[in-house]
Amino acid sequence: MLPDAPERGFATAEFEARTARAQTLMAQQGLAGLLLMSEPEVRYFTGFRTLFWQSPTRPWFVFVPATGKPVAVIPEIGAALMRRSWLDDIRTWAAPIPEDDGISLLTDLLAPLAAGKARIGVQKGHETTLRMPLGDWERLIAALPGLEIADATDLVRSLRMVKSPAEIEKLAHICAIGSATFNRVPDLVSEGMPLEDVFRTFRREALTQGADDAPYVVGAADQGGYADCISPPDRRPITRGDVLMIDTGCTWDGYFCDFDRNWAIGTASDAARRAYDVLWRATEAGLAAARPGNTCRDLFQAMSKVISEIDTSGGDIGRMGHGLGMQLTEQPSHMFGDTTVLSENMVLTLEPCLNYGDGLMMVHEENIVVGPKGGVLLSTRAAPELPVI
Amino acid sequence: MLPDAPERGFATAEFEARTARAQTLMAQQGLAGLLLMSEPEVRYFTGFRTLFWQSPTRPWFVFVPATGKPVAVIPEIGAALMRRSWLDDIRTWAAPIPEDDGISLLTDLLAPLAAGKARIGVQKGHETTLRMPLGDWERLIAALPGLEIADATDLVRSLRMVKSPAEIEKLAHICAIGSATFNRVPDLVSEGMPLEDVFRTFRREALTQGADDAPYVVGAADQGGYADCISPPDRRPITRGDVLMIDTGCTWDGYFCDFDRNWAIGTASDAARRAYDVLWRATEAGLAAARPGNTCRDLFQAMSKVISEIDTSGGDIGRMGHGLGMQLTEQPSHMFGDTTVLSENMVLTLEPCLNYGDGLMMVHEENIVVGPKGGVLLSTRAAPELPVI
Repeated sequence: MLPDAPERGFATAEFEARTARAQTLMAQQGLAGLLLMSEPEVRYFTGFRTLFWQSPTRPWFVFVPATGKPVAVIPEIGAALMRRSWLDDIRTWAAPIPEDDGISLLTDLLAPLAAGKARIGVQKGHETTLRMPLGDWERLIAALPGLEIADATDLVRSLRMVKSPAEIEKLAHICAIGSATFNRVPDLVSEGMPLEDVFRTFRREALTQGADDAPYVVGAADQGGYADCISPPDRRPITRGDVLMIDTGCTWDGYFCDFDRNWAIGTASDAARRAYDVLWRATEAGLAAARPGNTCRDLFQAMSKVISEIDTSGGDIGRMGHGLGMQLTEQPSHMFGDTTVLSENMVLTLEPCLNYGDGLMMVHEENIVVGPKGGVLLSTRAAPELPVI
Repeated sequence: MLPDAPERGFATAEFEARTARAQTLMAQQGLAGLLLMSEPEVRYFTGFRTLFWQSPTRPWFVFVPATGKPVAVIPEIGAALMRRSWLDDIRTWAAPIPEDDGISLLTDLLAPLAAGKARIGVQKGHETTLRMPLGDWERLIAALPGLEIADATDLVRSLRMVKSPAEIEKLAHICAIGSATFNRVPDLVSEGMPLEDVFRTFRREALTQGADDAPYVVGAADQGGYADCISPPDRRPITRGDVLMIDTGCTWDGYFCDFDRNWAIGTASDAARRAYDVLWRATEAGLAAARPGNTCRDLFQAMSKVISEIDTSGGDIGRMGHGLGMQLTEQPSHMFGDTTVLSENMVLTLEPCLNYGDGLMMVHEENIVVGPKGGVLLSTRAAPELPVI
């Protein structure tokens, strides 16, 4: 395990600051509260961290009022853990109760706001989901006539995109664990090993290196290159002439790394070497462009310009990187249509990709934090030439 | 690794049968189609399996028409993988496009149905979420005047609750892997080991035993027993007099096991032994009651009756087990309010729990398939007395 693991969790001051920033924006936008129900948002305002979200059975709610601490409205099974948080007002029910899974509690909480024709924020926009039954949502709204629902996606996104020093410390730690794990791959992988076993070995190594988990391990290996970057592994053995790619999201204390590495097995084709070189230089261009004041579009264009040396298709991924934090992928997106202005302490992936040869693709990815003069690497930079195992 | 891994994936006939059963129910309920967007439902009808769902950025849709094969409406990044499925009609867009993430494609697909005032099913009920932005959903519905939306939660749930022989084979395999992993715990865990390292070691061992992943590893350890069953681990060392509980959801080929084990460290208190004995016998009662024709309420009452020997509170978990399959927890729920009739080939957890001592709780869990005469264990039955490490 890496020796320098930071403290787990956050000081109460961190949650106070997050809440204060939210409340400042809420005041500017005329919002009397925020109703949140997704894992990262509940965790962002409370510190509540549990794998129990993997069960779809129970909804969980946090309400951020215009002033004062957030209020939790959660299943009783989570009460003991939530009581360890900085919250004072924790309301629970014996979930699951399909006919009333928190809806009465939420109605009681929000009725005074509805009576005053107040406006509250709910996440309704890009990259969000309604993490409660749609029928329950419809019943809740019907029970609160007068309450105005605004889309708080941009508000929450603007808070979460810029990371605190404590968040960056966690992200740097898991990126270091990811780098150490990738560093071991040439020793762990060899010709003849089925891809499924490569992935299993990678996961075990990530845990050995100190990751809490390695929930996201995808990739591919095939002759001269791969054609797809989101498939589960098969039993095909790694073969001389393959390009192997592993892309991983490992976690530590609830924060993700998300980057990949490519290797040639035994020998590398000229086409694969060339693709790798272009992507490596595209990433360099991304690093230089990742400075405050530039936009995600600028980042996208800086990388695209290099990639256009051999591919002008734009690829099938739709973007060349994204935000990173409590989720494997967060806003913003490095694409032409995203004009988010970069600011210091945003944590991002740079993920240029290209198509080459006969239906092949290659993807590179690094994790960075936006510094005053450009991107600062959190992942250990990939080798400048396609490594051969 | 266990030697008897079944085939991965499913024969096309399995998807044909699932679709035919859905279409029979749709005809009975007057539904012209099902619009599905959650990972398990998309996978159920297509076989599309990828970890990429961990990224919240992109929505994915499958439409099951009244006749014929399902239609996929998905981001281009998933096209290569979806083309390996049994589907013919795969429509893609270059997601992410926040201003139109599949909405035009869905509108085109559904407009003829809306023109005919047709009724389609969407999952709106218990244990479901809207896995797309709420704002996009509202825009989609507004663009399709005349289209009636019905809640298809019960329809989909009735299909998924009863497993096919191929599904049961996968579930039996991952339960065997889970059992083999738990079996190794006494050799891997010892006094002085921080709980965090116990969990990490458990995850590594599950992978060694052949799991694709061990996404859900929770539990607790404390003197005489634990007070909470969903928390992440801390660095507190395992200490003589602790009761240690590990609860895991491991996966193989997209199917979960979900069961736990308890151990005493060094020595066990009489109270902990007694709690364990009661839970073990409650599980026996559950096994006997898990026969076709009985209801989830019957299962709950059979287990509750034994538990009432020392606890009549009903616990904080809200139920005593649930369905199991592509998700860690699925419908139904073993609780008084769930009168789902059990039928052969339902795969379930039995999860009795109780409170004892000063704020302590204990949870047992086994995985079973409903056989003609009662529950048939998929997990290797826990020892009848609290094991001491």
